[in-house]
Amino acid sequence: MATLPIKTVGVIGTGVIGASWTALFLAKGLQVIVSDPAPRAEERLRSYLEKEWPTMSKVGLSPGASLKNYEFVDDISDHLGRLDFIQENGPERLDFKRSLFAHLDANTREHIILASSSSGLPSSEFITDCQKNPARILIGHPFNPPHLVPLVEVVPHPRTGAQYVTGAMGFYQSMGKDTVLVKQEVPGFIANRLQAAVCGEAYSLISRGIISAQDLDKTVTSGIGLRWAFTGPIMTNVLGGGGDFRHLLEHLGPASRAWTEDMRNHEFDFNSESLDALNGSVQEWVSKVDVETEERKRDNSMLALIKDKSNDSV
Amino acid sequence: MATLPIKTVGVIGTGVIGASWTALFLAKGLQVIVSDPAPRAEERLRSYLEKEWPTMSKVGLSPGASLKNYEFVDDISDHLGRLDFIQENGPERLDFKRSLFAHLDANTREHIILASSSSGLPSSEFITDCQKNPARILIGHPFNPPHLVPLVEVVPHPRTGAQYVTGAMGFYQSMGKDTVLVKQEVPGFIANRLQAAVCGEAYSLISRGIISAQDLDKTVTSGIGLRWAFTGPIMTNVLGGGGDFRHLLEHLGPASRAWTEDMRNHEFDFNSESLDALNGSVQEWVSKVDVETEERKRDNSMLALIKDKSNDSV
Repeated sequence: MATLPIKTVGVIGTGVIGASWTALFLAKGLQVIVSDPAPRAEERLRSYLEKEWPTMSKVGLSPGASLKNYEFVDDISDHLGRLDFIQENGPERLDFKRSLFAHLDANTREHIILASSSSGLPSSEFITDCQKNPARILIGHPFNPPHLVPLVEVVPHPRTGAQYVTGAMGFYQSMGKDTVLVKQEVPGFIANRLQAAVCGEAYSLISRGIISAQDLDKTVTSGIGLRWAFTGPIMTNVLGGGGDFRHLLEHLGPASRAWTEDMRNHEFDFNSESLDALNGSVQEWVSKVDVETEERKRDNSMLALIKDKSNDSV
Repeated sequence: MATLPIKTVGVIGTGVIGASWTALFLAKGLQVIVSDPAPRAEERLRSYLEKEWPTMSKVGLSPGASLKNYEFVDDISDHLGRLDFIQENGPERLDFKRSLFAHLDANTREHIILASSSSGLPSSEFITDCQKNPARILIGHPFNPPHLVPLVEVVPHPRTGAQYVTGAMGFYQSMGKDTVLVKQEVPGFIANRLQAAVCGEAYSLISRGIISAQDLDKTVTSGIGLRWAFTGPIMTNVLGGGGDFRHLLEHLGPASRAWTEDMRNHEFDFNSESLDALNGSVQEWVSKVDVETEERKRDNSMLALIKDKSNDSV
């Protein structure tokens, strides 16, 4: 397979994730063909892109980047032959994705990569009707908001070709993303599982009245989350153990298992009473803050940190 | 109880945590009386403080702060009467802490707060021999390194007096710390439980060959950890759900439970084979990096972020 330069990208679906991918691809100087059947989707996309463009300018625009380089089309079928890469962001319904990918596979050039943003459905489940080249289909799972958060999880299905995995990783990296390779399909992939682990225990502790929602978050933002922005759980262990990871684990194992057992005995069960207790503590805090302001502050601070980190690694 | 100004603090034990507390208290302009029976403890503390003082200068020195304001003593018993606050950092052994706290309780002024840095032993277990005023004993659990990471978990035992809880929170806040109140003693308190939840799933995914140790960490540092440095798990949920937390939870619950069930079925068991697989992937990465450089980079970046965050909140 000869590697084609990727100049024109198709974005299917312009909800939160698809719109954000569109902003990123435009900022990186690509041409984007985009479609979404929802009412007023074109208008919403335009106003989103106009709102986010100043942020993209701060992230950094590539030569040739322009807000004019996208075309919203009613039916992407008419344009599939000229796409060099597709990022799909449709609804998380198996029947929908199965027929969409069969159609995309049949009507695109044989070697272009078809990536799905799906966090829920592994691609092995929706390639079943693809006849031409299902080996170029994989998951490229971003994090909200994708035009800011660098992480993309690349998840091949068992028959995805190695060259397409390499191609997708290279493409996302050229978009300024940090890619990780999920070598086998597992429910939730990696980040959502780690989040579910933290959130489950957080919900349990709050609903049991052991800590308030506000203090729970502070435990993370003033403590463990600060470290995790720079060193992940493994390197944090390595540094904490003075470099000897295995020794630390043998030493930590018993204590950690006692905590884990207690956590398992109090697992959050999502029943109505637990949800009420949890939500009560959350509302006591959230009712006092302006959510939009919090989001803007978070995104600005995160953007500054991401820039610092990428300068640091140069 | 009349609140005394805290001018002279006792630090018992000068391992990693005790030495770091000493650096912080000195930087904040306090007098510190410190003791540790380990061989060469005095010399080690001196060299640690000299090494860390430039960092403390960056964090910010309070008026009167000086590296000369500490006194290393052979036996702290002779000095207990003049201490306004005690931070204990001895070994995590119940018999040791029981007799130490009985001694401290008997020989200090009745209303000074006796705080333990213990992460493992709840204070209810080691106040059993205290006759004078066990109500002023509590846990003040810091995070490594305490002179940088703002978080302190304050954990009263069931008979700790409310005024001492308030007093300890106020004291730590005056040291520039962010305090959270753990309302009931639970194994591991809060942060260690959240860490154990993430680490357990991380160890499992790596040992199963689903992701490399290096990519696992990148999932955190380029993704979820970046957000957690600014918004904790709860506020991240609130922002992700457009402000409606309960609706998001009802919506997320089923998916999250499917992930959690799969996680439970593959729980990391700390057996030798799993440890080998995990450690293999960790070593493949760690053998290529210089751990001391990683730590210095992490601490410098974290310090810059902590300063940014505190400026932002002013």
